[in-house]
Amino acid sequence: MSMHTNEVLPTLPEWEVSDWLNTPSPITLASLRGRVVLLHTFQMLCPGCVTYALPQTERVRKAFPESDLAVVGLHTVFEHHAVMTVEALRAFIHEYRWSFPIGVDQPDGRGGPSRSMARYGLRGTPSHLVLDRDGRVRLQHFGRIDDLVLGAILGGLVQGGRRDSGHGEGNSVVAEGGPGCTSSACSID
Amino acid sequence: MSMHTNEVLPTLPEWEVSDWLNTPSPITLASLRGRVVLLHTFQMLCPGCVTYALPQTERVRKAFPESDLAVVGLHTVFEHHAVMTVEALRAFIHEYRWSFPIGVDQPDGRGGPSRSMARYGLRGTPSHLVLDRDGRVRLQHFGRIDDLVLGAILGGLVQGGRRDSGHGEGNSVVAEGGPGCTSSACSID
Amino acid sequence: MSMHTNEVLPTLPEWEVSDWLNTPSPITLASLRGRVVLLHTFQMLCPGCVTYALPQTERVRKAFPESDLAVVGLHTVFEHHAVMTVEALRAFIHEYRWSFPIGVDQPDGRGGPSRSMARYGLRGTPSHLVLDRDGRVRLQHFGRIDDLVLGAILGGLVQGGRRDSGHGEGNSVVAEGGPGCTSSACSID
Amino acid sequence: MSMHTNEVLPTLPEWEVSDWLNTPSPITLASLRGRVVLLHTFQMLCPGCVTYALPQTERVRKAFPESDLAVVGLHTVFEHHAVMTVEALRAFIHEYRWSFPIGVDQPDGRGGPSRSMARYGLRGTPSHLVLDRDGRVRLQHFGRIDDLVLGAILGGLVQGGRRDSGHGEGNSVVAEGGPGCTSSACSID
Repeated sequence: MSMHTNEVLPTLPEWEVSDWLNTPSPITLASLRGRVVLLHTFQMLCPGCVTYALPQTERVRKAFPESDLAVVGLHTVFEHHAVMTVEALRAFIHEYRWSFPIGVDQPDGRGGPSRSMARYGLRGTPSHLVLDRDGRVRLQHFGRIDDLVLGAILGGLVQGGRRDSGHGEGNSVVAEGGPGCTSSACSID
Repeated sequence: MSMHTNEVLPTLPEWEVSDWLNTPSPITLASLRGRVVLLHTFQMLCPGCVTYALPQTERVRKAFPESDLAVVGLHTVFEHHAVMTVEALRAFIHEYRWSFPIGVDQPDGRGGPSRSMARYGLRGTPSHLVLDRDGRVRLQHFGRIDDLVLGAILGGLVQGGRRDSGHGEGNSVVAEGGPGCTSSACSID
Repeated sequence: MSMHTNEVLPTLPEWEVSDWLNTPSPITLASLRGRVVLLHTFQMLCPGCVTYALPQTERVRKAFPESDLAVVGLHTVFEHHAVMTVEALRAFIHEYRWSFPIGVDQPDGRGGPSRSMARYGLRGTPSHLVLDRDGRVRLQHFGRIDDLVLGAILGGLVQGGRRDSGHGEGNSVVAEGGPGCTSSACSID
Repeated sequence: MSMHTNEVLPTLPEWEVSDWLNTPSPITLASLRGRVVLLHTFQMLCPGCVTYALPQTERVRKAFPESDLAVVGLHTVFEHHAVMTVEALRAFIHEYRWSFPIGVDQPDGRGGPSRSMARYGLRGTPSHLVLDRDGRVRLQHFGRIDDLVLGAILGGLVQGGRRDSGHGEGNSVVAEGGPGCTSSACSID
């Protein structure tokens, strides 16, 4: 996990996207300025992406308000190009019901890693990029990242610069029911 | 989940603890001022505490530096007093290897909820209280809380008031290995 | 995992139980002859027992009919005797809602492993013993055992000697709903 | 879950497979006579198949000896035909490392359910068919099925007709280490 903590941080250059799914119109990085951004890069035939990273990204989408955090997926193909087509991706998104906007990273035309993937220097999929409200790269992480850690990074950036504002909009489940114990909690009589 | 977002927040009164485990000396709330605090209240025979809440608290301990976040457990007994004794708690902590300091909330002497539990108005176990660096209650939550949501709250408070400082010390696992896919990630050749 | 496949198998000697919980009357091993038996030995402060082995035993109880399979728990204490009392066990069973009969293995009176535990040569907790319909020990396993493997052993013994009889009474969940995919299945239109 | 327990059970007709993957030569149902068979039918873009059913099938492969149980996958496409091609399936199998033989069910050529799927009357994916050693259908199940239940059915058929033979070849993990508790077990000193 590469963390940037110094004052001068790189700003992520614009992505090159050929097609957008799950959004009525194309999304530019510039248009997201002012919000924290989670950019999730994946391939539809990458087991780690399907098994844990895409579900985590979906949970992030539900845990933070859209006004604070933009969640964007980027399909960054670097292998099996012939079968990970836009049409296949569309079917994949439909069946798994991913809800966030997903861009198709522009192929390089020579069977290598797609263009934004190469430009951003990603090592593979899944990769997670987190940008602060000024578009600076605060996290670039390849592979699995823990929910607590990702939550802390995103929560920290959402709250950064605000001393007294609150938190919330979480989807936590509050224990319910009468006295006694359930599998989730024990209530006082 | 009760969130406090207004300017005037209650400060948690001191706990009343009869015994401390996992710490060389007693801990006062006052001594934690300046750090964010996660106070985890539980009972050793509460299934939800044992199954998910205590393991989550242990993960929180590992995900944040001690200099930023204090994690404290409080054994708040309100039932089965005769068997959830200090001696039993000590065996429980030993076998489960909980690593954070745990205080035994002072019994009320009449078989009801223990004293701090009553004073804090907790509904049962597990309950999670999060205090900011000034000791104000930012979260009081009964029952299960999602890792992403808890991480965001803690990360937000740790970062609150800092615009450019970074994050980190996370225990994320970075994908490793050569080209190809593992169950966690796919690497470029 | 110790498997016995030869013709001459040991028959488990009777247990020595001081107290029975979750059953209206004491249970003898002899009374279970004719049914397959899963004997689950545990301690209430053993993390592996609480986290996976007792829940697994509860699932076994629900997956097989009582007429074919008897499930019995045995509280085999070999440490922390002072706090793993019958009274504590009773509270533990109540809070976790274990549904099968549980016997308290007779203490040896000298702080060592309880009597049946010693007689059976168990190495610790959790341990799983499986007896066939004739009371012969078919499995004696210390530690975690996979659901598929345990299911196969129990299913094999329940079916042993029957060529054409069926299976069933399983608690499997059948996919429901109209055409399209859910998280569990995809239906034809 | 449809269980057949009467004496006269249907025998599954041969599948119609256009291509075989993960096997040096085509497999006929007839050639499996004498072994119990788990036929797992799936689609590569079916979330329930990818998330739990294919991993379960892989675990079944490892839990039973090949001489007793044949595990065969069948790619039964009934939607998104244009993108769930043989080439795409090959990439999917490669990345997920499924180890058992997988046949491509013959398309009907009109965009409907593939031929064997229609012949077998399957409702969707995942579907599990279990055949006894005589090729008779003992289980036909659509959707999720519990490991214990599936294990019991397979174990019962593997053992059916044998009274004294044992079990084994399981991949259970035996607790290790010295005295004291780990997350999986507690050992006697």
